[in-house]
Amino acid sequence: MTDSRFSPVTGTVLPRYAGIATFMRLPYVALNDADIEAVDIGLVGIPWDGGTTNRPGARHGPRQVRDASTMTRNINRASGINPFACCNCADLGDTPVNPVDLLDTLARVTAMYEAIHQHGIVPLSVGGDHLVSLPVLRAIAKDGPVGMVHFDAHTDTWDRYFGDSLYTHGTPFRRAIEEGLLDPKRVVQIGIRGAQYNDAENDWGERQGIRVIDIDEFHALGVPAVISEIHRVVGDAPAYVTFDVDALDPVYAPGTGTPEIGGLTTWEAQNLIRGLRGLNLIGGDLVEVSPPFDPSGNTAFVGATLLYELLCVIADSLRSRRG
Amino acid sequence: MTDSRFSPVTGTVLPRYAGIATFMRLPYVALNDADIEAVDIGLVGIPWDGGTTNRPGARHGPRQVRDASTMTRNINRASGINPFACCNCADLGDTPVNPVDLLDTLARVTAMYEAIHQHGIVPLSVGGDHLVSLPVLRAIAKDGPVGMVHFDAHTDTWDRYFGDSLYTHGTPFRRAIEEGLLDPKRVVQIGIRGAQYNDAENDWGERQGIRVIDIDEFHALGVPAVISEIHRVVGDAPAYVTFDVDALDPVYAPGTGTPEIGGLTTWEAQNLIRGLRGLNLIGGDLVEVSPPFDPSGNTAFVGATLLYELLCVIADSLRSRRG
Amino acid sequence: MTDSRFSPVTGTVLPRYAGIATFMRLPYVALNDADIEAVDIGLVGIPWDGGTTNRPGARHGPRQVRDASTMTRNINRASGINPFACCNCADLGDTPVNPVDLLDTLARVTAMYEAIHQHGIVPLSVGGDHLVSLPVLRAIAKDGPVGMVHFDAHTDTWDRYFGDSLYTHGTPFRRAIEEGLLDPKRVVQIGIRGAQYNDAENDWGERQGIRVIDIDEFHALGVPAVISEIHRVVGDAPAYVTFDVDALDPVYAPGTGTPEIGGLTTWEAQNLIRGLRGLNLIGGDLVEVSPPFDPSGNTAFVGATLLYELLCVIADSLRSRRG
Amino acid sequence: MTDSRFSPVTGTVLPRYAGIATFMRLPYVALNDADIEAVDIGLVGIPWDGGTTNRPGARHGPRQVRDASTMTRNINRASGINPFACCNCADLGDTPVNPVDLLDTLARVTAMYEAIHQHGIVPLSVGGDHLVSLPVLRAIAKDGPVGMVHFDAHTDTWDRYFGDSLYTHGTPFRRAIEEGLLDPKRVVQIGIRGAQYNDAENDWGERQGIRVIDIDEFHALGVPAVISEIHRVVGDAPAYVTFDVDALDPVYAPGTGTPEIGGLTTWEAQNLIRGLRGLNLIGGDLVEVSPPFDPSGNTAFVGATLLYELLCVIADSLRSRRG
Amino acid sequence: MTDSRFSPVTGTVLPRYAGIATFMRLPYVALNDADIEAVDIGLVGIPWDGGTTNRPGARHGPRQVRDASTMTRNINRASGINPFACCNCADLGDTPVNPVDLLDTLARVTAMYEAIHQHGIVPLSVGGDHLVSLPVLRAIAKDGPVGMVHFDAHTDTWDRYFGDSLYTHGTPFRRAIEEGLLDPKRVVQIGIRGAQYNDAENDWGERQGIRVIDIDEFHALGVPAVISEIHRVVGDAPAYVTFDVDALDPVYAPGTGTPEIGGLTTWEAQNLIRGLRGLNLIGGDLVEVSPPFDPSGNTAFVGATLLYELLCVIADSLRSRRG
Amino acid sequence: MTDSRFSPVTGTVLPRYAGIATFMRLPYVALNDADIEAVDIGLVGIPWDGGTTNRPGARHGPRQVRDASTMTRNINRASGINPFACCNCADLGDTPVNPVDLLDTLARVTAMYEAIHQHGIVPLSVGGDHLVSLPVLRAIAKDGPVGMVHFDAHTDTWDRYFGDSLYTHGTPFRRAIEEGLLDPKRVVQIGIRGAQYNDAENDWGERQGIRVIDIDEFHALGVPAVISEIHRVVGDAPAYVTFDVDALDPVYAPGTGTPEIGGLTTWEAQNLIRGLRGLNLIGGDLVEVSPPFDPSGNTAFVGATLLYELLCVIADSLRSRRG
Repeated sequence: MTDSRFSPVTGTVLPRYAGIATFMRLPYVALNDADIEAVDIGLVGIPWDGGTTNRPGARHGPRQVRDASTMTRNINRASGINPFACCNCADLGDTPVNPVDLLDTLARVTAMYEAIHQHGIVPLSVGGDHLVSLPVLRAIAKDGPVGMVHFDAHTDTWDRYFGDSLYTHGTPFRRAIEEGLLDPKRVVQIGIRGAQYNDAENDWGERQGIRVIDIDEFHALGVPAVISEIHRVVGDAPAYVTFDVDALDPVYAPGTGTPEIGGLTTWEAQNLIRGLRGLNLIGGDLVEVSPPFDPSGNTAFVGATLLYELLCVIADSLRSRRG
Repeated sequence: MTDSRFSPVTGTVLPRYAGIATFMRLPYVALNDADIEAVDIGLVGIPWDGGTTNRPGARHGPRQVRDASTMTRNINRASGINPFACCNCADLGDTPVNPVDLLDTLARVTAMYEAIHQHGIVPLSVGGDHLVSLPVLRAIAKDGPVGMVHFDAHTDTWDRYFGDSLYTHGTPFRRAIEEGLLDPKRVVQIGIRGAQYNDAENDWGERQGIRVIDIDEFHALGVPAVISEIHRVVGDAPAYVTFDVDALDPVYAPGTGTPEIGGLTTWEAQNLIRGLRGLNLIGGDLVEVSPPFDPSGNTAFVGATLLYELLCVIADSLRSRRG
Repeated sequence: MTDSRFSPVTGTVLPRYAGIATFMRLPYVALNDADIEAVDIGLVGIPWDGGTTNRPGARHGPRQVRDASTMTRNINRASGINPFACCNCADLGDTPVNPVDLLDTLARVTAMYEAIHQHGIVPLSVGGDHLVSLPVLRAIAKDGPVGMVHFDAHTDTWDRYFGDSLYTHGTPFRRAIEEGLLDPKRVVQIGIRGAQYNDAENDWGERQGIRVIDIDEFHALGVPAVISEIHRVVGDAPAYVTFDVDALDPVYAPGTGTPEIGGLTTWEAQNLIRGLRGLNLIGGDLVEVSPPFDPSGNTAFVGATLLYELLCVIADSLRSRRG
Repeated sequence: MTDSRFSPVTGTVLPRYAGIATFMRLPYVALNDADIEAVDIGLVGIPWDGGTTNRPGARHGPRQVRDASTMTRNINRASGINPFACCNCADLGDTPVNPVDLLDTLARVTAMYEAIHQHGIVPLSVGGDHLVSLPVLRAIAKDGPVGMVHFDAHTDTWDRYFGDSLYTHGTPFRRAIEEGLLDPKRVVQIGIRGAQYNDAENDWGERQGIRVIDIDEFHALGVPAVISEIHRVVGDAPAYVTFDVDALDPVYAPGTGTPEIGGLTTWEAQNLIRGLRGLNLIGGDLVEVSPPFDPSGNTAFVGATLLYELLCVIADSLRSRRG
Repeated sequence: MTDSRFSPVTGTVLPRYAGIATFMRLPYVALNDADIEAVDIGLVGIPWDGGTTNRPGARHGPRQVRDASTMTRNINRASGINPFACCNCADLGDTPVNPVDLLDTLARVTAMYEAIHQHGIVPLSVGGDHLVSLPVLRAIAKDGPVGMVHFDAHTDTWDRYFGDSLYTHGTPFRRAIEEGLLDPKRVVQIGIRGAQYNDAENDWGERQGIRVIDIDEFHALGVPAVISEIHRVVGDAPAYVTFDVDALDPVYAPGTGTPEIGGLTTWEAQNLIRGLRGLNLIGGDLVEVSPPFDPSGNTAFVGATLLYELLCVIADSLRSRRG
Repeated sequence: MTDSRFSPVTGTVLPRYAGIATFMRLPYVALNDADIEAVDIGLVGIPWDGGTTNRPGARHGPRQVRDASTMTRNINRASGINPFACCNCADLGDTPVNPVDLLDTLARVTAMYEAIHQHGIVPLSVGGDHLVSLPVLRAIAKDGPVGMVHFDAHTDTWDRYFGDSLYTHGTPFRRAIEEGLLDPKRVVQIGIRGAQYNDAENDWGERQGIRVIDIDEFHALGVPAVISEIHRVVGDAPAYVTFDVDALDPVYAPGTGTPEIGGLTTWEAQNLIRGLRGLNLIGGDLVEVSPPFDPSGNTAFVGATLLYELLCVIADSLRSRRG
């Protein structure tokens, strides 16, 4: 049974557009609040896009996703999961960042996630560009490599950009594998597509053992078979889930930095995420919502709904672990 | 044979962007015009969103749908139906409304539809929020409960909001069933999805006998089987058809108040509506186009095209009844 | 006293966003309607931009201005004029046009204005690009050259474009002077600005006797002195008034084809138009509203309000002539 | 000296786009929090537009103004006032509202402001449509009529709409005068303009003794003289200040329900508000920001900056009263 | 092996948003440059929409597609084709046009394509409205009728508009067949849909022998069977490919003049174009991107990606021909 | 007399929306082209916003300003200057940048400007955020401190952000003074406004001798007196001019990162820049156009027009120096 302090405000009492916008209308609990000890799952914003090589703006993602997430209701019609009844969920605010210093920001983000991790809170984060997954993993996967379910149009396992720049939103998972945070043999990437600059870069991940299900194979297999393959690759050990909104077709998520046409529908994405039920999930993130490239806010709304789907399977996983 | 007074202006003579925007470039016929006696099907706007619990703006729907509907041509390529050759169609203008008084507006709308009904005109309406279906049904279904084909992301059979408010766009069909305007056993709802606040509210409709085909079942059955099921449930007796644009996925209809991702494509919607051919349709509506949430007008354009599809099956049904 | 058939619908009875959008919520009267004989001032749309040398879209102007003009109320607070109490006003619809044939369109437009002129109706038109003033003048100034008050960023007295093209929105008043429709000595242009391709073209108008008050002189003189100068130049003989929305600074009218920064404010424009009171106005137009370049509709709203200001002084002038 | 609990987060430590958006990055203090006793000035949202007769959307105003207000810094360069150093300021959240019931909402809003008033907190509110000023005044002016500085394009002293509807955003101050909440002889309205439906309605306010400085007189007098006139009319007794963003020209505030061209610039508005220094201000509001009609958020940004200007003079007034 | 002069700038050296925007970051080579002799495939813009019967703006297509095309990378992940390694590709700039003279423009365009053709360069063009295909075909198909793969919502084989206008974007292929430029028996049209004004016009093309795969048949057959049918109809002789972005569903390409709901997805379009491999392609175009109707630029981005897909199959075809 | 190679394409021959977009339709001349020796003034883009502390996007400025600048004509109506007749002007392309490394980017930019400087070319740059002025000054002012005319809402002389970050768009001119690139006694800042975080930071610049004309003083003095003061402060020695578009009121330039209401009009800005005639200008820039925050492109259009005004006075200054 969850604690009533952590119930989201319901839209049948206060309209959903009303009130200060926190993630899913949950209470804001700062890391130094007394209530922090009761939190099971913490929703965190990482307002930073300093790793972006092309179109910026993902720094504005957390705030707009918070706004859109006030549309969220409780019970998942498809799975029956009510995450707020499973676990005490809270909005932990945003991480500190330094918009003009990349390495400083990586350090600040990792520091906050180490504190979250020490409180035993499972983090569900909202980026920010995809580089933000790296400092999160540095905090929560430091005890050994974890598996990962990775939805994306891009592998993000490139080596370097613009000469010798190692840290960009195209490189986080190469760094994470190099640093022993991810076990490439337990990593699966779904939705990969788009043209390439060269072949060598793209082969690196598969040579490490990553299972890449590109968009052609995704269509050939279909959603149920892809879900089976995800479970086969990731197995029962701890795993992280990361969802880059550019996995979706740009019509669903135009507000992102590096769109690629021919992507997932939201219907497919919802079913894929629901299919993660049963994995041993220790955290997740949703990244690359870039509000300036979608003034309508529709991308953030899609992101917020998928964030809720991620929360459902993470909460269910946490409940399972606790027995 | 229809009357030449009711032919829409053709775009090969006057470009489609030209001229005063009436529904489908039909003549405007006021209820007190002499021509009203010749009208078979009346297109009517209900510019009102006072039942909206979240994002407003559907009051602006009729005007923007009128504008977009000037893109309409005559002959349905798929079905061969030319509604303007079947029936005398006209734009009857908008209902009176009172934007600051909900009950007053319900009364004003019902009064106008009673007049339309007395003229023997089949109404095809453009909302407005979904509450507008209630005052329409009060006028045209007062002789006994009718069946209904209901496309929507939401059941709209909730009981009350914000304490004791009975009339909102989330409650019209609960009220209609309570008032004996709808026969719940002849009601079918297609496209239902999205998370819920609680389970009890959602079960009410199915307990009354409504056939709910939620989005998962829709995908499992496929369009042809869903069409068969609609015909099985609704049967041959008089039926109403109501299309909430949020039945569509938000990429097709972002300009609406309560979007839910993972919805119908326009291709599916077109085929579902075409599948209504053969039903005994006594009226219909298309609701929840909210222009302020889609300045591009694309939602209204989608709405206008589906309005044309609804007109085709309603005109064909009316022609069939007349033999 | 005006005829009650020509009263605009009031927003305190039917909200201003409701109903079919005609100019200022006036009745639509076709040229072949019996009511046409009672019309004093006809509002007409010319949905055409075939003379545009740069960014198109003014063809959509009349419809969006109609929509925005439903915000209009009756009594001008500043001048006390109620144009609807002065004269019988009506929306005469749009002229026929041929979007792919420039000369054909000029002929179609002139033909409709000749009919309007024969009915003794004073036309107030909404473009369309600025070339549309030419076919209007051909119909209403054929009995001799008239004066003109011309608000614009550009003189529109260029000779030819793209080789030998004589008819563009940059040339109408050169053609009108050449055709004897305008008396250049009674023409005054206000708001001219922007860089030039060459000096020769710009001097032509002044050499004919046009009084050019460019934006620098406008600021130096101030609104009251400019109004005096307009009256001095135009005098008491019949005159036409044409308002290109690019006379305004682009912040007020971004939805236009050839914006030039540093233009008039709407406050200045309102006062300038009000200052036309006392002129002998035989018609007017408001042109170059290009909706695709301002999806917000704000330019059309500005245009509609200035159209109302034009209507006030034209109606007052007509009332004065009638004594 | 103010309490450090109430210091806004500074943008040189955490970037201004980061973190949960409260008004001016102030702490959220609920009415039942212990910290409420220390609050001097409470910023409150009233997310409601049920009194709107035309274009809705002001219900979304508080949230978007909160977002934009995170751009706020501390010290007013022009006046030197640092409101956060003068007074303990906090975000008190939004009032409860019922989007489908006007009278219920008025009661809910008044109840919350009565509680605020009992805590001795000076309220600075963000609407919502202009009707929201009425329930606020019912709570804070119940001990006797107060004066008012009213910036607006409209007098909002109409009697009734759509038949017999007494409560709309066009009528709040007529009701407030009738209810003895405002002393009309100490009310000054600045910026009034736009056409009228009839003369009688407009004369009512002036007959009660309201000092109307319409836009023509505003320009004739100039800002310093208008400020003097405001002080002369309002005097030293308690006064309320209400700023409808449609007082501004629509280029500055397109996101509003009833724009009127030819309005105030933001520069003029800033100077007018700064000129209120020295008045005995007991509360204020900024209303009619309607986000759906300005997806850019620029109107909200303007609103947030003027809200800060209002806060400066209210904080200075409160400091003066406390000596 | 291709010439290094023709390598596109890579985004890992200079970010993709940087630099002057040419098609796919290729060098600009004017027809009178010495480098022109080395060019195999020339990308050309045709900035003209004078054939548009409804919503204009396609004249702005080439520039916005250039901008979006800077996102292009080299190697097609699905097919392995690297067009820039196959052939020397260059941006040849835009054709001359006359925005106010249709026939003059047709002549100017044909003249430029004759020069391109004489240089032995295969043209891949970006419109412009669909009429631009006609002057291209006049230059490159003058030696005898060619086949054509035509993706579109409309057949564009109408006869005339607005009386006797023969040249519009609805008529180019009727003219091309009449002029002996196309062999109708080797023309296949895919994606045709939408209502019709009359039946006669639509039958003309099929009577000439065109193979029309309308959207219903497309869905019934599926992508692989449609590809087979394309190859069967077009055969091995020279063929042109033309892609009107309104073949896509409007959610993918809202920025177009004549949208029709229920169209192709980008995923389907990508696979269809990839299926053209093996045809003997002598040129192609992508038309009807109308930037003013999609300020987001997303339509241009979709267009640019499909342009790259077209380039891949054209380059592969050219390589095959050269052995 | 200038060289015909450097004449911009005229819009009366090729429409202004046509062709590859270079700055003002000038030829692109790379630094290693032979033509570079003939260039007098080089227009350069610096596509970088890594110094931005708040809303990013100025990296996209150069491309969108290029697009908008194709609207430019030759002869300045107000001053008579034709910059293209004074000097050989060319587009030199964009500088190299590294979007994920601030210090690397500063070095790359300086390196390119050193080469430009060695060619004796006067640079006129388009940012990019305001930090880009620093690496430019490092290249062109290394022989001794220069004067500067600085239009901005902010002084940009802060010390550090987010702890110890020295290089941001809020600090360039403090660094430039510290590095001896600027002589603070010959620096004048116009348009400063907005609230402050603390007083100390703001005083620094004035303590160094900078002449700050804040917006209040600007209005008190008026344009002619401000121009005199600029000339008095800057004198006859070499000077740089930098125009941050946030000097303008946000209605004119919403597409920028840190807007402040109450700013300059474009009319005032045009006249201020024209007033720089007679200064000894050695370069200039226009910065902080952020396209993602103004999808309409209007900010870029304003920026392009002011860029042309800057070019006029720089070209005139260069001609004067050459005698």
